Amino acid sequence: MRLNSSKRSQKKGLSPGSLVHVGERKVDQPRITLIDYDGDQFLEKEVATVEECFPFNETSTVTWINIDGVHDADVIEKLGRAFGLHSLIQEDIMTTSQRPKLDDLETSIYVVSRMVELNGEGKEIVTEQLSLIFGRNFVLSFQERPGDMFDPVRERIRHGKGRIRKLGPDYLAYALLDAVVDHYFVVLETVGERIETLEDELVADPRQETLHTIHALKREMLFFRKSVWPLREVVAALERTESPLIQPSTNIFLRDVYDHVIQAIDNVETFRDMLSGMLETYLSSVSNRMNQVMKILTIISTIFIPLTFLVGVYGMNFEHMPELKWRFGYFFVWGIMIAVGVGLVYFFKRKKWL
Amino acid sequence: MRLNSSKRSQKKGLSPGSLVHVGERKVDQPRITLIDYDGDQFLEKEVATVEECFPFNETSTVTWINIDGVHDADVIEKLGRAFGLHSLIQEDIMTTSQRPKLDDLETSIYVVSRMVELNGEGKEIVTEQLSLIFGRNFVLSFQERPGDMFDPVRERIRHGKGRIRKLGPDYLAYALLDAVVDHYFVVLETVGERIETLEDELVADPRQETLHTIHALKREMLFFRKSVWPLREVVAALERTESPLIQPSTNIFLRDVYDHVIQAIDNVETFRDMLSGMLETYLSSVSNRMNQVMKILTIISTIFIPLTFLVGVYGMNFEHMPELKWRFGYFFVWGIMIAVGVGLVYFFKRKKWL
Amino acid sequence: MRLNSSKRSQKKGLSPGSLVHVGERKVDQPRITLIDYDGDQFLEKEVATVEECFPFNETSTVTWINIDGVHDADVIEKLGRAFGLHSLIQEDIMTTSQRPKLDDLETSIYVVSRMVELNGEGKEIVTEQLSLIFGRNFVLSFQERPGDMFDPVRERIRHGKGRIRKLGPDYLAYALLDAVVDHYFVVLETVGERIETLEDELVADPRQETLHTIHALKREMLFFRKSVWPLREVVAALERTESPLIQPSTNIFLRDVYDHVIQAIDNVETFRDMLSGMLETYLSSVSNRMNQVMKILTIISTIFIPLTFLVGVYGMNFEHMPELKWRFGYFFVWGIMIAVGVGLVYFFKRKKWL
Amino acid sequence: MRLNSSKRSQKKGLSPGSLVHVGERKVDQPRITLIDYDGDQFLEKEVATVEECFPFNETSTVTWINIDGVHDADVIEKLGRAFGLHSLIQEDIMTTSQRPKLDDLETSIYVVSRMVELNGEGKEIVTEQLSLIFGRNFVLSFQERPGDMFDPVRERIRHGKGRIRKLGPDYLAYALLDAVVDHYFVVLETVGERIETLEDELVADPRQETLHTIHALKREMLFFRKSVWPLREVVAALERTESPLIQPSTNIFLRDVYDHVIQAIDNVETFRDMLSGMLETYLSSVSNRMNQVMKILTIISTIFIPLTFLVGVYGMNFEHMPELKWRFGYFFVWGIMIAVGVGLVYFFKRKKWL
Amino acid sequence: MRLNSSKRSQKKGLSPGSLVHVGERKVDQPRITLIDYDGDQFLEKEVATVEECFPFNETSTVTWINIDGVHDADVIEKLGRAFGLHSLIQEDIMTTSQRPKLDDLETSIYVVSRMVELNGEGKEIVTEQLSLIFGRNFVLSFQERPGDMFDPVRERIRHGKGRIRKLGPDYLAYALLDAVVDHYFVVLETVGERIETLEDELVADPRQETLHTIHALKREMLFFRKSVWPLREVVAALERTESPLIQPSTNIFLRDVYDHVIQAIDNVETFRDMLSGMLETYLSSVSNRMNQVMKILTIISTIFIPLTFLVGVYGMNFEHMPELKWRFGYFFVWGIMIAVGVGLVYFFKRKKWL
Repeated sequence: MRLNSSKRSQKKGLSPGSLVHVGERKVDQPRITLIDYDGDQFLEKEVATVEECFPFNETSTVTWINIDGVHDADVIEKLGRAFGLHSLIQEDIMTTSQRPKLDDLETSIYVVSRMVELNGEGKEIVTEQLSLIFGRNFVLSFQERPGDMFDPVRERIRHGKGRIRKLGPDYLAYALLDAVVDHYFVVLETVGERIETLEDELVADPRQETLHTIHALKREMLFFRKSVWPLREVVAALERTESPLIQPSTNIFLRDVYDHVIQAIDNVETFRDMLSGMLETYLSSVSNRMNQVMKILTIISTIFIPLTFLVGVYGMNFEHMPELKWRFGYFFVWGIMIAVGVGLVYFFKRKKWL
Repeated sequence: MRLNSSKRSQKKGLSPGSLVHVGERKVDQPRITLIDYDGDQFLEKEVATVEECFPFNETSTVTWINIDGVHDADVIEKLGRAFGLHSLIQEDIMTTSQRPKLDDLETSIYVVSRMVELNGEGKEIVTEQLSLIFGRNFVLSFQERPGDMFDPVRERIRHGKGRIRKLGPDYLAYALLDAVVDHYFVVLETVGERIETLEDELVADPRQETLHTIHALKREMLFFRKSVWPLREVVAALERTESPLIQPSTNIFLRDVYDHVIQAIDNVETFRDMLSGMLETYLSSVSNRMNQVMKILTIISTIFIPLTFLVGVYGMNFEHMPELKWRFGYFFVWGIMIAVGVGLVYFFKRKKWL
Repeated sequence: MRLNSSKRSQKKGLSPGSLVHVGERKVDQPRITLIDYDGDQFLEKEVATVEECFPFNETSTVTWINIDGVHDADVIEKLGRAFGLHSLIQEDIMTTSQRPKLDDLETSIYVVSRMVELNGEGKEIVTEQLSLIFGRNFVLSFQERPGDMFDPVRERIRHGKGRIRKLGPDYLAYALLDAVVDHYFVVLETVGERIETLEDELVADPRQETLHTIHALKREMLFFRKSVWPLREVVAALERTESPLIQPSTNIFLRDVYDHVIQAIDNVETFRDMLSGMLETYLSSVSNRMNQVMKILTIISTIFIPLTFLVGVYGMNFEHMPELKWRFGYFFVWGIMIAVGVGLVYFFKRKKWL
Repeated sequence: MRLNSSKRSQKKGLSPGSLVHVGERKVDQPRITLIDYDGDQFLEKEVATVEECFPFNETSTVTWINIDGVHDADVIEKLGRAFGLHSLIQEDIMTTSQRPKLDDLETSIYVVSRMVELNGEGKEIVTEQLSLIFGRNFVLSFQERPGDMFDPVRERIRHGKGRIRKLGPDYLAYALLDAVVDHYFVVLETVGERIETLEDELVADPRQETLHTIHALKREMLFFRKSVWPLREVVAALERTESPLIQPSTNIFLRDVYDHVIQAIDNVETFRDMLSGMLETYLSSVSNRMNQVMKILTIISTIFIPLTFLVGVYGMNFEHMPELKWRFGYFFVWGIMIAVGVGLVYFFKRKKWL
Repeated sequence: MRLNSSKRSQKKGLSPGSLVHVGERKVDQPRITLIDYDGDQFLEKEVATVEECFPFNETSTVTWINIDGVHDADVIEKLGRAFGLHSLIQEDIMTTSQRPKLDDLETSIYVVSRMVELNGEGKEIVTEQLSLIFGRNFVLSFQERPGDMFDPVRERIRHGKGRIRKLGPDYLAYALLDAVVDHYFVVLETVGERIETLEDELVADPRQETLHTIHALKREMLFFRKSVWPLREVVAALERTESPLIQPSTNIFLRDVYDHVIQAIDNVETFRDMLSGMLETYLSSVSNRMNQVMKILTIISTIFIPLTFLVGVYGMNFEHMPELKWRFGYFFVWGIMIAVGVGLVYFFKRKKWL
């Protein structure tokens, strides 16, 4: 994951609530899809302008408007006006580096969470902001770009599977959040597999790249954690809230999603601990190997340096060197050298260096 | 312990409460055993279908149904319907990577805890999920595979030992939890013994494998902690709860099990601290030894390198080298070399390197 | 950022509330600017003496007095007397190394926060104390030196943009705080960019300077954190306070600024974690490279030291060395040496050192 | 201190409240001493069977029964029945690896704390469990083996010194706890002295053993902390409790003992921090010395390796080597060698390596 | 700062409240000074016996008795009796290693804090216990030895400067505490300056002593922190207390001193973080330099070891070595050697080692 490159600074000095998109523009044109349903009827269509959605807000059916792309201030503002969103909320929707948070706006509830995905090659974690607003009979969801994370929810609405068609916008909002949290586990499993591979690599053949991968994974986990950790508080607040917008029957589902968030945090923390442990293992195995290398160098040097000195002695050209004339001088020197060598090897064996 | 290899992702997109087994399938066929008792009567049998158990639920006796194996959605669902379990609870039972938690379902209480055991060779810690549900006159317990952890409880019921036959399902649930927690200490004692062995090894002869074992134990403790830590909150909540399902007389037993959980956590933390300390000891002793090796290399080199240079000088073939013709040149050079050698040894002694 | 060089010690022994400037004097003469407005009228002027401002305090319009430079005890005292500030508050204004804090003085609210800026070259973080006091119809702001951070707020008042002209001093105080917090992100973005550059450098070509920059950035983040962290508590207290000086409608704006402070803290913590990670990466890559260097040294030495010994042997001048007379002795020795060399290279290959 | 070798696992599967001694058996036969007193009368005797003590429980005097040795289930059970102790409490008394804790049993209060002593040679910390139970007119104290820690309290009772004879069992329980906590300081002072010795050693002559002692002390402090830390909560609870068993006048004494516990924890933490700092100092001084060693090796090598090469050159036996025939070739080579040597020394001086 | 060498153990076994001085005796004879004042009158004198002070306690004026030296049990006891201090409080006064704490004794309030000073050479931090007791019309202050920290307060009383003469003993107690806290900043500034010097040293010329100073400062900060940290809680409790001994008007001053304590803690923590960062910088710069040294050694060795081997080859004395007879053999060998040398240098350049 790259560091957040959103230029929040470009907003410096603007009046609070000014609608300027802060973040990377990930889509050309916002795509607006509308789903309107209750227990009996169901309608799904892609609309060109937000205005087309407004009539559905009058009816008592649940109206779910999903917007992919949040850079168009015009769209956000119109929706904001139609659904009574404070300009600060509109601003938040357009600022895509928000921390997960909850705002109870009385007539509606605003939830920011972060969708986490692996990018194309599955090597980097990409996060995206999801703004959810739900009121008495509507749910608005703002994503930064089109994705398939909500397709299963759409499927369930289309085919009337499960209880989703019979329940209200709070349950739909829960279902969307649940889809987001479920996806955390998809990402975590991939990370878990990579960690297992790394562990095997670490034992079999630790290399410089292993180290880089560990560091990279640690960093990804840092960002993952940043996205998930505050969500815990958000879901807990959602469960505790006394807003009439949330039916008591939805509470058990919120508790369930809360448990999942905790579980995800738990996994992230475990991964972080494991990666730290692996880093330690790597470093101590590197220092161990270096120790090994040093030992061999020392042994070779310590054996041959004295011997080389010795042969140097008898390579001197003094006229008077009695040993040179001895009949078995040469073999005698070999004897000494072998003795020294064997003695040193014995010494090293005793020191447990060999 | 391997990383959790349960594929939670396969559930992505399913309606919440869908019954799909998430986790490793550890048993072929769920085994269902029924124990029905009160102060006077006692019945124990293994049943083939869950339906056989239902009549016992009508009576006022305590009915304990233990299921080994949680992958069969059919069994879970039938039990769920008979004992009024929300579909999310059924889902939780089948998802075997839950964190310990407590859900007060009004007519029953749902407790998730994790059983910790050593695998065959006693080298790895294996955890298993235990789901406990108890109501007015029944206890359901779901394990992932058959085990003997509850045998002592069964014995006590069979022979009417202790107070167990006189008390209700809350006491039985406590007894099961207590058995789980007691087993933590069995595992911890084994770990403690291995740590003591390691400590002796560390002093006597620290090797690369010692390091690997320390790292491995640290990792096991990480997983143990993850299993035990949240249980503390669960037992505390059980003690605090105002549910009429828990008799006041059971509270002192819950406090006791709470003390044991704290004690287990305490031990795990102590082991972690000790292992970290041992890691430090290992690393500093390795770096110390390397230091030793370096010193020897340096001493040998520093003594012989100048001497080798000297003998090299008199190995040169210049026609005019006056020293070569001196009567005692050779012995003179030996004298110088011995002086240099002794001087350097003295120098090293003074520097406390020898 | 330099360590706080303010000489608080010079005040040692003075009566509490004594007005002595503690801190670096950053401006020659305090500059006092007055802005007086309500929905209809607007007045802005620079005044020479504080007394000129007092008549505006009588009117019901919002009076904003901004003072650049806090070393003049006379100015502070006069303002203090006119606006009913306790002598301890006056003292706090003049002591420019305060931690962010909030004091509810009943007739007014005193907020200390710290403005964070990059110095000229953008290499160091400079902080400055901002004292804000607002009451029923006035806002006093004390900066250490003139700056342009509040220009956008002034612009909005001048041109009646946004809601600022219609709301009271609490909203103005919020707008000033918001400007301060917004500027944190400007600084954080610059830091973020530098961290990204550093990361690329770390992979491509880690050098000693990279290390120094990482350490320097860590230190800057330490100071940044010190400035931002307590502000969180201050803004939360401002939101929670039941003082009638804060209109309920301002609460949503305070919550917004609270979210921004949290976000800033979050970024600072992430940067700190990343810098720590980079430090680890640097150190392990250095130790890795050293390992590399050691290996090459060892390989070269281990190959040539025995060979040099061998040629030394046949450089000895013994009269009786049979090998020297052999027809192919020389070539035989070369053969041995090549065999030894190749053998060692093969040995190193197998040990995965080459 | 050895790891807790108590075999809690041997109790696995027993009914809760079963009386089995868990822990090392430190004494052959439990020794029971009885002290019975009030303001006027005093009786002290050693009894053979617990039954002898029971009559004293009827009287209104304070009865203190001290039992040294907790492995005899029979003794514990009889006392338990006589003084109305729940079987779980009896079990706790016999399980000697308890964490400090407090149980308010309504008719009596049960306090577990740990006595800390240095073993014979003063090198290792030994802990022992103290179970205190006090009621309306009795105090029971269970130690693992006879010791002299309570002698001063006995003295004060015998001679009616201080207020002890005039106050009730709660004051006696306090006095015993106070004796335990006072003894912590005896141990801490010894540890403090050893740390000071170590610090001097570290500066004067750091050796491998110094390191081992630091590690050992750190580990002892880990165990000390484990014994003291939870006691804080226990004493705080004792002070806060609303049990009628504690006279208001005793509260100030409990606060005093609380202060002492905090002080002891404070000292333990400080010692831990200091030991960590010493470890760092040791390691960095070792790495520094290694650096020193490396430098000397490098300097010697770098000076002589080129020189040795040079003399090697003129040791070659080519027939046509013009220099060999020069009149002053030999002296010329010496000149070059001296120049190279001096140049390198100068180079090292400039690099600040010499 | 030396470790606390007070022998608390000598009190082991004494009845609680026994008056034995625990700590270093820093003064020969306790010095007692009395200041008695109200808005109109003022009296200051040094008294020989405590009894001389008692008459002043009867009057409604504020009586401040300052005792320098706390080893005389007699003095403490007489004062204790006269001012109604519990024997445990008297004991605390004489035990000079107390942690800062607050005891509300109903008729008076007892505050322990620690005065921090630099010793003579300004190299070590020395702490001293200050016991403050204030009641309806008196303040007792116990220091371990005479000092000038309270001189400014005395000055203010003498000359009736500020509000001190008009307010009661609570304000005087505040003024004394404030003087103590103000002095923290004097010490912290000195430490801050030393840290800045160290930082420059670290960049310019890091030496072994730099490391020792960093470690020493870290340790001093550890002790400073231990003295300041608990004071925060003490001042907060003083502000919160509902004791009638503290006038509401004093609260704002207590809040001010609370802010200062927080600021001091903040500084200590920052210094600790900075020192840790400096330690890291030092260690990584040492390891960097070692790397440098190793490289040079490797380069020199790797270039000359093969060359030395080569000249060794042609120094062999074989009878049949064809090269030796070649016309340009010698120059050819030089050619090879230069080629090898240049090649290696080129290789090192490419590896970025040169």
